[in-house]
Amino acid sequence: MNTRFSMSTAGLLLTLFASAQAAEHSVAYPEGYRTWLHAKSMLIQPGHALENPFQGLHHVYANKKAESGLKSGKYQDGSVLVFDLLQYQEKDKTIQEGERKLLGVMQKDSKKYAATGGWGFEGFAGNSKTERLVKDGGTSCFACHASEQKTDYVFSQYRP
Amino acid sequence: MNTRFSMSTAGLLLTLFASAQAAEHSVAYPEGYRTWLHAKSMLIQPGHALENPFQGLHHVYANKKAESGLKSGKYQDGSVLVFDLLQYQEKDKTIQEGERKLLGVMQKDSKKYAATGGWGFEGFAGNSKTERLVKDGGTSCFACHASEQKTDYVFSQYRP
Repeated sequence: MNTRFSMSTAGLLLTLFASAQAAEHSVAYPEGYRTWLHAKSMLIQPGHALENPFQGLHHVYANKKAESGLKSGKYQDGSVLVFDLLQYQEKDKTIQEGERKLLGVMQKDSKKYAATGGWGFEGFAGNSKTERLVKDGGTSCFACHASEQKTDYVFSQYRP
Repeated sequence: MNTRFSMSTAGLLLTLFASAQAAEHSVAYPEGYRTWLHAKSMLIQPGHALENPFQGLHHVYANKKAESGLKSGKYQDGSVLVFDLLQYQEKDKTIQEGERKLLGVMQKDSKKYAATGGWGFEGFAGNSKTERLVKDGGTSCFACHASEQKTDYVFSQYRP
C-alpha cells in the first residue's frame, strides 16, 4: 500500500509540476508589440531600488485591449502590456537608446492567473523570444505590482 | 505704364505671399499619432547645441507610410513623422516624463515642398493643435536635416 501510495503521490507531483511549468510558460512572446500603443517611457538610473534588473530606459506598450485598461484602470482578459527595457548611452549631452536588456510582459487572464492578481508575468532576455526569465510563476513580480491594486496592478497610466 | 506695372507686380507679390503662407500652414496637425509606430526616443540635455528648443525627452512616431521609409531610407509622399518633445523630471534615481513642450511634424510631399527636400516642416506649441511655431516655411529646419540626405533627410532610423 505504501508503495502504491508513493507511486500515486509521485505521479500527482509530476502532474502538478508539469502544469505549474505550463502555467509558468504560458505567457506568450508579444509578437508585433513594437506597433502597439506606446504608453509612456521612463529611465531608471544606477542606485535605484529596482536597478537590478530594471536599470535602463524602458518603454511601455499596450495592445488594443490594454489601451482601454490604461484609460479606465480596469483590464479585460487578453490585455497585454510590454515593458521594453533598453540599455542607454549618455554622451555629448544626450541620452541615447542602446541594446535591449529584456522584455517584460503582463498578460491578463483573471482565472488562469488568479493567484497573481489576474496577470501572468514573464520576461524575455535581450532579443530572445524563448529565453524566459521568470522562474517563480510571477510571484516576485506580483509582490511589487500588488501595491497598484486600484489600477488593476498596473503601474503605467495613460497619458495623451 | 509704370503704374500698371507696379500694380501687377503688387498683385503678383500678394499672390505669392498668400501661397507662401498657405504652404507654410499646410502641414496638418497629425491626428492620432499617439497610436502610430513609436520609432525611437532620445533625451537632449541642457548644454546641447539644439538645447533651444529641443532640450527634453523626445519620442519619434511614424505613420504607416513613414514606417516603410524608416526601413528603406526612402519616403513616399504622405509619409508623416512626429517628434513629440516632453519635459522631464529627474528624481529618486529616475527620469520621468513631464508636460509636452512641442510637437514637431515632417510631412512628405515631394512637389509641394521641393525647396526643403520634399518635406514640409511644422511645430505645434505644447498640446495646441493650432499654435504653429515654424515661421520661415521650414528653411531653418531643413538646414539641419540637409545633412541626412542619404536617409531622405530623416535623422531617425528604424530599430526593431
